[in-house]
Amino acid sequence: MDPIKFRCKECHKRVEAQYTLDSVRASLARQEDTIIFALIERAKFPLNNFGHNRLFGSDEYIGSMINGLVLKTEAVQSKAGRYINPEENPFFPENLPPSAAPDYPFSEFLQGAGASININKEIWEVYFHELIPMFIKCGDDGNHAQSVLADLTLLQAISRRIHYGKFVAEVKFRESPKIYEPLIRAKDSEGLMDELSSESVEERVVKRVERKATVFGQEVSLEYDVSGDTYMINSVASKLYKKYLIPLTKKVQVEYLLKRLD
Amino acid sequence: MDPIKFRCKECHKRVEAQYTLDSVRASLARQEDTIIFALIERAKFPLNNFGHNRLFGSDEYIGSMINGLVLKTEAVQSKAGRYINPEENPFFPENLPPSAAPDYPFSEFLQGAGASININKEIWEVYFHELIPMFIKCGDDGNHAQSVLADLTLLQAISRRIHYGKFVAEVKFRESPKIYEPLIRAKDSEGLMDELSSESVEERVVKRVERKATVFGQEVSLEYDVSGDTYMINSVASKLYKKYLIPLTKKVQVEYLLKRLD
Repeated sequence: MDPIKFRCKECHKRVEAQYTLDSVRASLARQEDTIIFALIERAKFPLNNFGHNRLFGSDEYIGSMINGLVLKTEAVQSKAGRYINPEENPFFPENLPPSAAPDYPFSEFLQGAGASININKEIWEVYFHELIPMFIKCGDDGNHAQSVLADLTLLQAISRRIHYGKFVAEVKFRESPKIYEPLIRAKDSEGLMDELSSESVEERVVKRVERKATVFGQEVSLEYDVSGDTYMINSVASKLYKKYLIPLTKKVQVEYLLKRLD
Repeated sequence: MDPIKFRCKECHKRVEAQYTLDSVRASLARQEDTIIFALIERAKFPLNNFGHNRLFGSDEYIGSMINGLVLKTEAVQSKAGRYINPEENPFFPENLPPSAAPDYPFSEFLQGAGASININKEIWEVYFHELIPMFIKCGDDGNHAQSVLADLTLLQAISRRIHYGKFVAEVKFRESPKIYEPLIRAKDSEGLMDELSSESVEERVVKRVERKATVFGQEVSLEYDVSGDTYMINSVASKLYKKYLIPLTKKVQVEYLLKRLD
């Protein structure tokens, strides 16, 4: 099909990501919506585990279907430049092809060795062993490719949220270097964790997520659920945040800060 | 990473798609949510047209970045079996690799030559030349791979909705063969279009879509929109349905029925 031809003077205008306390909070709130939409979309499908442990019938690689499909999709995305954005972290970084997209001057906001922290292996385990069993019914509707793509969309949204902790930590460090520097030099993980934690803020986030999931999921349970059963997206979303997303984001923040002065 | 190991007795239980007047209506309503979520997610990014007309720096194919990225992603999905589901239609069907996924006995509900109707070329044109300019701001934030993936997710949702017209038409045909058969034999496109149209039902759909978009989009405009500007997803969504989705779905229905008895 023909390439797209529309163009205007503003087309090439750069829209730079901002990292301030306000913008970081706004981004985290916006990411909640993405995660909830992705939860709802994944819930459309049953487990579809049928192909997960089988060999993916390809001569190019051997592995479970889900690994293969995610790896292949990440390779296509990598070539198109996804991972030159420091907010993005691949699940299979080992053999990714380099970006073939035009260079883009992403902000060099992150500092130190912590910029390359990637805890996606842990996120992958949590996702398939903790989260999926929470809200996905067993069964096979044949839509394996579609449900793996829904898995990947949700995994990417969760991963972006958790690794966004690096940006949160950097913003906080720049706001109060006098508080963080001594803790970092003393390698005081617990002190850093205390400094980064706020029970009241975290509770507010969990409550907001639960409310959002109720709002965004309301039509789904009204219309999709013919049998009176519900997907319980609101309790899943708030549990996901409370048990995994908030603790893992803080873990990334502490790890990032410990390497901030290296 | 390790393949997933969880399994239960229900894992392999087949969940078959149902095609009745009620189930088809429920599916269409559920698909509205998917389309609205995808609109909101695409609206996160500016146009990111920068790479669209450039050569995608790959020795495997030459084309605009968006064509290449969609083509590559569809190839991965095709190998994983996406297009063995008759509800799915690729945008680039020409050189897709065959499915390497385990066979799945999808319902053979559709009848006749109309089962293979694919108007994705027209959907593609409408999408990039009519829909995108309606709600996406010009500008380049460097997230080209991400915004093309958001394009593809939205395109797939729109395409599924429009081609679902085949299932709607087949359900209606089975309910009232005595009405449809003479119209089909007389090749009476206008008569079929009249029979398939219901102004009041269509108006209700457009209104419901507008209301849903207001509900699902409300947090977005509150939190993402710092400058007081809005994405107007509700008017975009209802216009999309009124001007394109409903007419194109009916076009598919008529084309399908005209070939129903071949």
